[in-house]
Amino acid sequence: MGDPAGIGPEILLKALLKPSVERSARIIVVGSRSKLGTTARRLGLAVRITEAGIRLPGGRVFSITDVDTTRSQVPLGRPSCQGGEIAGKAVEEAVRLALSGEVDGIVTSPVSKEALALAGYGMVGHTEILARLTGTTDYAMMLTRRRLRIVFVTGHVAHRSVARKLRSDRIVRCIKLANRYIDLYFGIAKPHLGVACLNPHCGEGGLMGDEESRIIRPAVVAARRGGIDVEGPFPADYLLSDPVSARFDGIIAMYHDQGMIALRSEGFDDVVNITLGIPIVRTSPGHGTAFEIAGSGEASEASMVSAIRQCVRIIKRLRDAR
Amino acid sequence: MGDPAGIGPEILLKALLKPSVERSARIIVVGSRSKLGTTARRLGLAVRITEAGIRLPGGRVFSITDVDTTRSQVPLGRPSCQGGEIAGKAVEEAVRLALSGEVDGIVTSPVSKEALALAGYGMVGHTEILARLTGTTDYAMMLTRRRLRIVFVTGHVAHRSVARKLRSDRIVRCIKLANRYIDLYFGIAKPHLGVACLNPHCGEGGLMGDEESRIIRPAVVAARRGGIDVEGPFPADYLLSDPVSARFDGIIAMYHDQGMIALRSEGFDDVVNITLGIPIVRTSPGHGTAFEIAGSGEASEASMVSAIRQCVRIIKRLRDAR
Repeated sequence: MGDPAGIGPEILLKALLKPSVERSARIIVVGSRSKLGTTARRLGLAVRITEAGIRLPGGRVFSITDVDTTRSQVPLGRPSCQGGEIAGKAVEEAVRLALSGEVDGIVTSPVSKEALALAGYGMVGHTEILARLTGTTDYAMMLTRRRLRIVFVTGHVAHRSVARKLRSDRIVRCIKLANRYIDLYFGIAKPHLGVACLNPHCGEGGLMGDEESRIIRPAVVAARRGGIDVEGPFPADYLLSDPVSARFDGIIAMYHDQGMIALRSEGFDDVVNITLGIPIVRTSPGHGTAFEIAGSGEASEASMVSAIRQCVRIIKRLRDAR
Repeated sequence: MGDPAGIGPEILLKALLKPSVERSARIIVVGSRSKLGTTARRLGLAVRITEAGIRLPGGRVFSITDVDTTRSQVPLGRPSCQGGEIAGKAVEEAVRLALSGEVDGIVTSPVSKEALALAGYGMVGHTEILARLTGTTDYAMMLTRRRLRIVFVTGHVAHRSVARKLRSDRIVRCIKLANRYIDLYFGIAKPHLGVACLNPHCGEGGLMGDEESRIIRPAVVAARRGGIDVEGPFPADYLLSDPVSARFDGIIAMYHDQGMIALRSEGFDDVVNITLGIPIVRTSPGHGTAFEIAGSGEASEASMVSAIRQCVRIIKRLRDAR
């Protein structure tokens, strides 16, 4: 359910009301039952929240695992310790369900890093919590929109710290993760990968930064030696333009906004976040908590619908491959 | 003509062959006559390069101002001192023509910063040279694609130096330039402007950078006090997504790739560069020298065509406004 103070409860319920989602899987909702009830009533959604779970108009019921034990009042539309705590407990419980085999995959609603920090989780997002809970050190965030698949070398990092955090070994790991998971999750054997530069115009021969020659190019060379079909680095505004990116099965971006601006340039609806490297299939809508519209009913469930359907698609592909 | 070793000569000649360009203006080409001749012959273009100038199939002749006095051999497809020297002299001559009133505006082909540096111009692009030659300190680069108009606070700067170079007074100046020139050049009085953040998620309350609260927001507040219709800062991947950016007449981007990725995400063809603040109307295609395809005939003249037509449109608007 993500942070109850954001649009998580709303997009979750709206998504479940889509017949294509309802029919796609048996779904367990992990979060705050009382908050789901409030949301359904306030927005007049055609679901009933009961002790048994979420009752959809056709009669199907999806169970709720309630992690909101304190019944604390969560202030709507802003980060709070209470909101962060419920969001944190929800993902912990979802991971437990996945690791024990009770569920085949998890879909997460947006969380607030600020709220998670207030609740004592540190400056982290879902991806870092999932890695910690599954004991994974070798992981990466991939965001997709239709055929565009972008793996991020750095994530939620201040702009001024990105260059300092870039390392060849991390880039190689991201290339390897992209290579493995685009095969595993999308059925593209030996995917063709492209790597973005950090600096404008690829640093233009060192005039505007040298991370390309010092850090990125050596990583690309190493990955190619390892047998991966990878090219680059290319100037980001070239690689991420539509006619060029379409030639690649996956793209390695150096930082958050580099990939996100390309992904969201045509809108948010189909953007899905997938964590690579953890032993759990995990997807998520590609947007944030949207505190500013929480509770208004304005939130679109489109990205959440895409995330659930993508999760189901990956689970089926993994089953078929077995 | 830009750098003769890049695609400049090719896109220039191809653009002149478009009837819509040929009829739009009286054009003087400034560059290397011999290089134009070589390019026309190699690519079999339907133009003749003579002492009188460039003769088009319909009989019209556009004159050439030859700045290639040394007739030096310019190596094709890579930055060189000779290429940088011809490119530098061409823009110097074009500026002279504009300042003396012999032309109403200039359109520049791509230059290589590396080549300009080799030729002793320093680490600069066209924009900086134009500012220097016209004695302008208060200027900015704007790039446009259809209704998307982006003004850049920093330009050709290494990624790691962007945060250090961000200053409130510069952001205020960019907002003012956008406000003034979107009115002057596009006829939109009191344009509605949006300002982008530097950090992902707007820094998320300081967890990922604090330039939003320290530098960007104070600039927006100051510009609003000055009577400008400006909002922000917004997360860049939100502001630059299609449904959101369409609500603004102009957008202020903090760094090169932030704006360029959004502009080029759907392709390069319509991207036009316009310098704001200098006493000369100057446009340019929104791409680089493309050394890797120079001389191959593969270069598309679409962006150059857009740049010439945009230049003519602005000149006409300024005349009508007089």
